[in-house]
Amino acid sequence: MTTRNPSLPGLKNRLHEIIFEADTPEGKLFDLLLLAAILVSFFAVILESVQPLHDRYATLFLWIEWTVTILFTLEYILRLWIVEKPVRYATSFFGVIDLLSLLPAYLSLLFPVTHYLQIIRILRLLRIFRVMKMAKYVKDSYLILIALRNSRRKITVFLMTISLLVVLLGTLMYVVEGQVNEGFDSIPRAIYWAIITLTTVGYGDITPVTSLGQMIASVVMILGYSIIAVPTGIVTSEFGRSHRVDTTTQTCPFCMEEGHVPDAAFCHKCGNLLNPQEHFPV
Amino acid sequence: MTTRNPSLPGLKNRLHEIIFEADTPEGKLFDLLLLAAILVSFFAVILESVQPLHDRYATLFLWIEWTVTILFTLEYILRLWIVEKPVRYATSFFGVIDLLSLLPAYLSLLFPVTHYLQIIRILRLLRIFRVMKMAKYVKDSYLILIALRNSRRKITVFLMTISLLVVLLGTLMYVVEGQVNEGFDSIPRAIYWAIITLTTVGYGDITPVTSLGQMIASVVMILGYSIIAVPTGIVTSEFGRSHRVDTTTQTCPFCMEEGHVPDAAFCHKCGNLLNPQEHFPV
Amino acid sequence: MTTRNPSLPGLKNRLHEIIFEADTPEGKLFDLLLLAAILVSFFAVILESVQPLHDRYATLFLWIEWTVTILFTLEYILRLWIVEKPVRYATSFFGVIDLLSLLPAYLSLLFPVTHYLQIIRILRLLRIFRVMKMAKYVKDSYLILIALRNSRRKITVFLMTISLLVVLLGTLMYVVEGQVNEGFDSIPRAIYWAIITLTTVGYGDITPVTSLGQMIASVVMILGYSIIAVPTGIVTSEFGRSHRVDTTTQTCPFCMEEGHVPDAAFCHKCGNLLNPQEHFPV
Amino acid sequence: MTTRNPSLPGLKNRLHEIIFEADTPEGKLFDLLLLAAILVSFFAVILESVQPLHDRYATLFLWIEWTVTILFTLEYILRLWIVEKPVRYATSFFGVIDLLSLLPAYLSLLFPVTHYLQIIRILRLLRIFRVMKMAKYVKDSYLILIALRNSRRKITVFLMTISLLVVLLGTLMYVVEGQVNEGFDSIPRAIYWAIITLTTVGYGDITPVTSLGQMIASVVMILGYSIIAVPTGIVTSEFGRSHRVDTTTQTCPFCMEEGHVPDAAFCHKCGNLLNPQEHFPV
Repeated sequence: MTTRNPSLPGLKNRLHEIIFEADTPEGKLFDLLLLAAILVSFFAVILESVQPLHDRYATLFLWIEWTVTILFTLEYILRLWIVEKPVRYATSFFGVIDLLSLLPAYLSLLFPVTHYLQIIRILRLLRIFRVMKMAKYVKDSYLILIALRNSRRKITVFLMTISLLVVLLGTLMYVVEGQVNEGFDSIPRAIYWAIITLTTVGYGDITPVTSLGQMIASVVMILGYSIIAVPTGIVTSEFGRSHRVDTTTQTCPFCMEEGHVPDAAFCHKCGNLLNPQEHFPV
Repeated sequence: MTTRNPSLPGLKNRLHEIIFEADTPEGKLFDLLLLAAILVSFFAVILESVQPLHDRYATLFLWIEWTVTILFTLEYILRLWIVEKPVRYATSFFGVIDLLSLLPAYLSLLFPVTHYLQIIRILRLLRIFRVMKMAKYVKDSYLILIALRNSRRKITVFLMTISLLVVLLGTLMYVVEGQVNEGFDSIPRAIYWAIITLTTVGYGDITPVTSLGQMIASVVMILGYSIIAVPTGIVTSEFGRSHRVDTTTQTCPFCMEEGHVPDAAFCHKCGNLLNPQEHFPV
Repeated sequence: MTTRNPSLPGLKNRLHEIIFEADTPEGKLFDLLLLAAILVSFFAVILESVQPLHDRYATLFLWIEWTVTILFTLEYILRLWIVEKPVRYATSFFGVIDLLSLLPAYLSLLFPVTHYLQIIRILRLLRIFRVMKMAKYVKDSYLILIALRNSRRKITVFLMTISLLVVLLGTLMYVVEGQVNEGFDSIPRAIYWAIITLTTVGYGDITPVTSLGQMIASVVMILGYSIIAVPTGIVTSEFGRSHRVDTTTQTCPFCMEEGHVPDAAFCHKCGNLLNPQEHFPV
Repeated sequence: MTTRNPSLPGLKNRLHEIIFEADTPEGKLFDLLLLAAILVSFFAVILESVQPLHDRYATLFLWIEWTVTILFTLEYILRLWIVEKPVRYATSFFGVIDLLSLLPAYLSLLFPVTHYLQIIRILRLLRIFRVMKMAKYVKDSYLILIALRNSRRKITVFLMTISLLVVLLGTLMYVVEGQVNEGFDSIPRAIYWAIITLTTVGYGDITPVTSLGQMIASVVMILGYSIIAVPTGIVTSEFGRSHRVDTTTQTCPFCMEEGHVPDAAFCHKCGNLLNPQEHFPV
């Protein structure tokens, strides 16, 4: 995605190759070490939350946390120093995640609860696509996002309908079961039950006990079981549609290929981004 | 959706603009205040049902309830007075909802249980589409409704099959487990269990205990897991079909565009309703 | 579906009109009374299984059961006597159901447990399609059956894969949890758990307690959540396919219309069965 | 799939016909006996795990286990001796399964726990497709595999998104409920809960108790209920796509038919494999 930038001086250029690119052996090694550090940090955070492990290895976890935090801080400063347009990097998707990965550790000195926000470091793993040269995966991610974006209005309408349904059904159940079943002792709890039932999750922590309540619950279940077809139908027809549309007159800036479909994010011939400036401003 | 009506005298016309339209600043403000009142009323009703909050803020809830009710009553009378054809408004979709939003509060003076029917006020939120000028959302809602309407017979057949299945499977489980498992102590309860299992909700409040019962339950689960494909297939093919049909000779009454698809509710060029009189009689 | 048969003598012909057809007022009345009797009998069977109701209304239930049984027996004999080819009726779909609806009541005199098999009478309700003249519903039922029949092999392969998966995953969990969790005390029970989890039913009556067990369970859940896409994809593409196929040279025997799709069960112009002899031998 | 090999001497050729083919009566009989032995062995393994049956029939199970193991061992040696290229068979799909079916029994003499690995014998049942001449089932299995293979990248992206979601949502719930709900006493357990909820399994062994926790849980449920549409849409559009693609210039090696679809594994005219050497190296 990034290419050698002739306007950078020697050292910066060398570091840019190592830190931002993955084409040279050093660049690949750097990225692999980065992924390893992310994973170590991730497992340290989640395992530290297990009481017996916390009691036994508290010092080890503390040591890992701060080593990784300091390394990530140095890396972030280095990245800011290396790139030509630091603001652009700092406000890009990965730039924001890189910063968010650092803040919780420092904030936890003041507010201990933010300690767990370090889990956000796991998002840095998304860089794995870059390391593994998985351009096709990035492309497919875009296709999924495009299908979802195209159906966002239909999905919003669906979610609003679901929301109205669970409010009305929950209130109905509160009226029916509220007096005899402590699981339905307030409307918010009854709405919570309606969501559990309509989505077919079915924890079973709140269940109707009266005959009428069980009848209404049966209707809610069959409703939930049936209307799952709606979002599926929406998204599926959006996925399917992309194979049938007319082509546009856009020309690929890399290979000059024409005849792309309207939603195309990538050239179908060379696989490059059709509008690179939109997606990777850095 | 509604346009200035020259046959109304001055004041009525002005009020019509404010109450029924959302194009002027006053009209928009009115709609936003209305939405705010609906939300306040909604949260008052659901939070009042939480015992500790009820005990503490009973007077506040009562005050909110009656303020909103009186405001909505005035608004309803005003709407009836303003429109040219009051009967048409009173029998339209939003007219009925506006009335249903008022009745529960007054009825609750006679029958306290109807108090919670006020939750129906949440349906007034559907007006949000009008306020936000979200014509495209209304359009997409229609597309979903059209797809569901076109597949209503197939869905009816599916629901009848499901109903017969749960009756037969429930009775079978009653015969198998009825003697040894108090969860299956009657056929209606066994049918309730069959619905819970077939829809993959799985509360776990009633579960088979015998080997034969668990075998039958396994078959029901796999059946439910597989036949969810049927409504999904029906609705999806209906969504997909709309992209492939021939166009009709209908002409848009607003922009004169031709070549609409048979199910079109809106002009694909200007986004106006093709048959406004059908959908918004007011 | 059935038409006046000139070869039957007067009385038989009249009874045929009433019992087998629904075009005359008497025929419609007969069918409605039949549906009412089926529903009464159905509710008698399921409500009789509720202990308090059974204790209180035992005589009423007995009276209903035998009245309906005797009426159905007379009707079955009448049907056999009326039709020209009794064997054909007796071996047709509705003929078999009519007989199966009678047997349990008589058998229950010898074997009380067969009493509940009377629930099979509910299948007689399928005649409702005939009464209500819902030819389009019958047509859509056939379309669903055709889509399922066309995907039967793919669904068989899917169900075999699911079966192998739950056997292997269940055994794995038995090895992992068997010693410490009495919910997994045998492989059949562990397989039962795997089915509950893979189909996303999730009763919660058997749940893993070890970390390794919970990890395996997580994999099973995500697997079950993802592979539901397979049967859905199979059935959906089968539904969708029917809109795109070439037409055949078959001619409708009723209206002589040509150009039917290969899977057509009904004429797309007049709605009559293309191959009546295949579906309704009576 | 396999044909008479003229280069094998008499006895080997005869045995090859019996053991590897299913066209002669002896070959069919051999395969049916093999399937029976697999089923007997399978039920012996799973029923042996049921304590009461184990205590009562321990000797019988031991006898069955070793008889079947010795028979399978002889069969495996015979297969190796018969085929022209033993290494090819030993490294083929069925060759590996045949070996894996034997090892657990022998290993269990040294490591008792491997005893249950015998369950892997069930995979030998896949040979049933060969016995029953279910070429169409094999074909349809390939179509399913091809659709899944074509969507593997999209599914990987989906699974990675799900993984990141459950990690982030689980950690969030740990922070919210960790102090008051022992079900959320560590991040790994909270992630386990997030998987149970997002996949709509809903065991109910861990459920939120605070209002905030139940709100977050509601969001997770609706999220899980909605995004199931994504893998379904991916796989469905892949299934549907196969009906619309252009044909290739590949020629069937058996009937010389041309015009196959790009993903074709079998000739659409004669049903033979287009690239037999790829799929059945033996």
